[in-house]
Amino acid sequence: MTAHPGPVQPTSGATSALCPVALDDVTFAADGFFGRWQRRNATGTLPHCIAQLQVSGALDNLRLVTGEATGEFRDMWFADSDVHKTLEAAAWQLTSNPDDERLRAFVDATAALLVKAQGDDGYLNSHYTVVKPELRWQELHYSHELYVAGHLIQAAVAAARAGVGDDLVAVARRCADLLVDRFGGADAPPGIDGHPGVETALVELFRVTGHRPYLDLARRMVDRRGHGVLDGERFGSAYLQDHVPVRQAEEVAGHVVRQLYLLAGVVDVAVETGDEELFDAARRLWDDAFGRKTYITGAQGSRHRDEAFGDPYELPADRAYGETCAAIASVHWNWRMLLATGESRYGDELERALYNAVAGSTSEDGTNFFYSNPLHLRTGHDGSHEDAPSQRLPWYSCACCPPNLARLVASLHGYAATTDDTGVQVHLYSAGAVRTAAGEVVTRTRYPWDGRVELDVTGPVPFTLALRVPGWCAEASVRVDGVPVDVRAEDGYLRLHRDWSDGATVTLDLAMPVRVVTAHPHVDAVRGCVALARGPLVYCVEQVDLPAGVVLEDVRVDPTAAFEPTGLPGVPVALTAPAATVPPGDDALYRTDVPEPAATPFRLTAVPYFLWGNRSPGPMRVWIPTTTTG
Amino acid sequence: MTAHPGPVQPTSGATSALCPVALDDVTFAADGFFGRWQRRNATGTLPHCIAQLQVSGALDNLRLVTGEATGEFRDMWFADSDVHKTLEAAAWQLTSNPDDERLRAFVDATAALLVKAQGDDGYLNSHYTVVKPELRWQELHYSHELYVAGHLIQAAVAAARAGVGDDLVAVARRCADLLVDRFGGADAPPGIDGHPGVETALVELFRVTGHRPYLDLARRMVDRRGHGVLDGERFGSAYLQDHVPVRQAEEVAGHVVRQLYLLAGVVDVAVETGDEELFDAARRLWDDAFGRKTYITGAQGSRHRDEAFGDPYELPADRAYGETCAAIASVHWNWRMLLATGESRYGDELERALYNAVAGSTSEDGTNFFYSNPLHLRTGHDGSHEDAPSQRLPWYSCACCPPNLARLVASLHGYAATTDDTGVQVHLYSAGAVRTAAGEVVTRTRYPWDGRVELDVTGPVPFTLALRVPGWCAEASVRVDGVPVDVRAEDGYLRLHRDWSDGATVTLDLAMPVRVVTAHPHVDAVRGCVALARGPLVYCVEQVDLPAGVVLEDVRVDPTAAFEPTGLPGVPVALTAPAATVPPGDDALYRTDVPEPAATPFRLTAVPYFLWGNRSPGPMRVWIPTTTTG
Repeated sequence: MTAHPGPVQPTSGATSALCPVALDDVTFAADGFFGRWQRRNATGTLPHCIAQLQVSGALDNLRLVTGEATGEFRDMWFADSDVHKTLEAAAWQLTSNPDDERLRAFVDATAALLVKAQGDDGYLNSHYTVVKPELRWQELHYSHELYVAGHLIQAAVAAARAGVGDDLVAVARRCADLLVDRFGGADAPPGIDGHPGVETALVELFRVTGHRPYLDLARRMVDRRGHGVLDGERFGSAYLQDHVPVRQAEEVAGHVVRQLYLLAGVVDVAVETGDEELFDAARRLWDDAFGRKTYITGAQGSRHRDEAFGDPYELPADRAYGETCAAIASVHWNWRMLLATGESRYGDELERALYNAVAGSTSEDGTNFFYSNPLHLRTGHDGSHEDAPSQRLPWYSCACCPPNLARLVASLHGYAATTDDTGVQVHLYSAGAVRTAAGEVVTRTRYPWDGRVELDVTGPVPFTLALRVPGWCAEASVRVDGVPVDVRAEDGYLRLHRDWSDGATVTLDLAMPVRVVTAHPHVDAVRGCVALARGPLVYCVEQVDLPAGVVLEDVRVDPTAAFEPTGLPGVPVALTAPAATVPPGDDALYRTDVPEPAATPFRLTAVPYFLWGNRSPGPMRVWIPTTTTG
Repeated sequence: MTAHPGPVQPTSGATSALCPVALDDVTFAADGFFGRWQRRNATGTLPHCIAQLQVSGALDNLRLVTGEATGEFRDMWFADSDVHKTLEAAAWQLTSNPDDERLRAFVDATAALLVKAQGDDGYLNSHYTVVKPELRWQELHYSHELYVAGHLIQAAVAAARAGVGDDLVAVARRCADLLVDRFGGADAPPGIDGHPGVETALVELFRVTGHRPYLDLARRMVDRRGHGVLDGERFGSAYLQDHVPVRQAEEVAGHVVRQLYLLAGVVDVAVETGDEELFDAARRLWDDAFGRKTYITGAQGSRHRDEAFGDPYELPADRAYGETCAAIASVHWNWRMLLATGESRYGDELERALYNAVAGSTSEDGTNFFYSNPLHLRTGHDGSHEDAPSQRLPWYSCACCPPNLARLVASLHGYAATTDDTGVQVHLYSAGAVRTAAGEVVTRTRYPWDGRVELDVTGPVPFTLALRVPGWCAEASVRVDGVPVDVRAEDGYLRLHRDWSDGATVTLDLAMPVRVVTAHPHVDAVRGCVALARGPLVYCVEQVDLPAGVVLEDVRVDPTAAFEPTGLPGVPVALTAPAATVPPGDDALYRTDVPEPAATPFRLTAVPYFLWGNRSPGPMRVWIPTTTTG
């Protein structure tokens, strides 16, 4: 089998601690958590996205350019990117299902369409070709032209690594050469897009082609940003990520997806150019983002207005924006930080986002999605607006999230493990197998439902197997062939160095008691509340699990009560505990007399957050007020 | 002196319980709370607005129509309304300062400009005349043409009642006749504006002119609304107040100012047509608005996105939108409800909004304003955006609020008292005098700083003096000429019926202890917190009053502690109490171990919310976490 490198492949010259494993060298078993998710993606989400490209007009827009269609431009002005992201997803998927002829046909037909739609100069953007040719490159704060080009390039990179869509790299190179030509020179205009994304794409194209000008252009774009050159009249320069140079930034700010896409590119540039100052900026911004501006689900973005980060500790549960694409971008960024440093905290945050914010965005059938991912849906919520619907929707007027999910999940096994000089590092636990030059690791586990992970390890020469001990885990133990090993996690990894040539079974036990979590006291929104978590999963309470007549907002839990795992149809591990319903007493909105609480006990059931809204849509909350607060 | 009727003058045929008192028959003494505010408005806010009309281009836009200016249209497409609102303010102000020649000159010049700018058909809108003549009446969901016409009409109504701006009523009538002609017929198009406001204006013009078609058109507009006829693609039909007919609505929803302006018009239509069903809808929506969707400051609008009402009990302190214009609209609506019913709760909410949300919007010098009025400005708040600045700004790109303040405050004495067949009702207490046919009431008081109100009452024949006992007041007592009177408040009013012909001094004592207020437990945002209030004033804690080094978010109060009034330079009554600073212990955003709190006691000072940000701009919060919650 050919080795198909997956997403994010630092060159050998990069200052990167870890190396990713090629996609064909990792598999998730079909009965594991990620294996099921990937199957749902392959049979549900990806075909759904391909079908929607036709319905939304995104493909027809490109056909308007080639003359294969007539009519009006439809959908968002950056809708080409939906095509590109779906194409990228299909390319990754073909590394797992090379015999899927329909998928291959989609890739080939779309690649051919793009070849035909590309201008002689390399320009490829249906909106600015069909609707606004005179404004080409003239309104970069708004146009998304470089953003769209970035997704084209990423699709081509995926196709090249998957060995499909033969002409796509040539298309992407022509496009990138045009960018270099136009924006790469010393006297060229700044060439920064109001929506970042092209930076990481250019670095990846450099990785595929070895053509240094792509990397140089990416670096230039990173450095030209932050000087207020974009027209920020409407949204402000932070929204456009143009308010402060990244090297000087102290806080993540503005539009979350734009900020995080930029930071993924920043890390790519930093590791390929050995730019420590730039990488330090990424570290600093990470500390701010994950120390003060991230939901317990890993979601980011506190504000609907401007789809933005909030102030420090401004993390409202009900109006969490938590865009799905932001959680995906968080996975991208954390993975790059992890590769660069080998530090487990990046794996921890990648895992948190993946199992909660990202997983929760998609329905169990894979064809309905949340765009925003709140942590509380109130009783009486008006869910009639697309920006805060009461349940997942099949598509959105801005449809960035579904194809973004498709491309992430199709390549998810690329994020499971890495190698370095010492051996193999396992970051994500799901039943499956990893094959590396050092050796092979076959994993059996019911994780995240159970903390036991069994790994059959073989290898011709001795190597170190490093197992991530998640930050949530206070007690990890390991046995080799049933014999306890006295080893402690260092820097978040349990490291076992030995001769595996006869094969050995490593049994990792990650203690998974129910955790009753509180937030930093500056998070006003959830004061007096606790969240329930077990393993990497955050739990929530849904109306459908409450006794008839109980209002979700009246539920109170005793944080010292015994919370126990239990089963529920369709939910491998639910949680249960004694709780109480405490009605408000009177209707007064503001009061000086606190009515005597009349608590009625009942047994509470909580389900994993990522599963919410799959049974009967209705009120939901992650943070539950405690009996001691009222 | 001529009697100049003030704003909102129900006809004798209206189903209205109370009659307003003409503006010249009420005065606020210069040394009282409202008297000072009015003086600041007259010397600060109003001249500032007049000057800004020149700077912003709003007047020049109209001069483009008349040919007196050349150049480009500037400012918002509905900027004519800034002119009209300022004109209305000037008209009301001239009833108090008839000798202000500069103000009179502004009114006369502006009236002349409007006369000249009006089309032969009565159309008067500079944007749609200069920039988009072809789209006149074609995009009512967006154009604000009727909204702007409404403010023109309101300016003319004020001018008519003030006896100034001779030609303005004729201008307004030509404009209104055009509306009747275009939108009044049975087969006419719906004629509803995405931004309500014209409804109440048409009813007021009917009141001035007696011309019934204006009232009929207003009623028609109320009834045509809510059937989804406006193009709601961008904002949704609730934003445009077109999602449900008012008669069927169960909840206030969408853009707050639009909702409240509409409801002011609904009450006007209902009382003038005796439409009980319509009035019941207003009552129902009031219960929802003030029972579940109003901040303790009287501010409304939980969401920056769409400037909208939130879900029930969604009342975040830090991201409160609480637009100034919404609080002004709340005063308008409550006053109409109070006139219609005579029920004190409407006076209570009018008072709450006035002393807190409205008063807090303006700086002490009267020339800087908040557009949004949060109840919490975090440490680390990014105040660089106009939509959530860290301090009041002199003007806004959408400058609806400052001239709206000017017109309200210039006519504020019109909201102090009313009459009915039984006598006189006093709703707002401020040093001053009320003269009515029944008798005269001269008030001395330091209210809201002190709960004692002394009223010298005279009158030729016996009448009932009704004194509102605010809902916040648990203990009210009254003496007449020093002799205690055993009377209890009924329906929120203490009623004294007697012969006042020899004159008598009524002493009303409204007990004003410091109140420690909690919110309904469904208001998640302020769980475990208390707010401090005294009389009608809500208090807040500002960074500037904290000991050096104390972080505002670490402050905790014991709700059972003794909160005591105290003095502070520039603050007649501040509050003080023992408090503690409790740092977070560690930096973890989410934790399972709660660090042992290390409380350091200190003496807390709280100041009236309306005064915040006048000393050193910085963090502020109304809701303070309690020591018992952490």
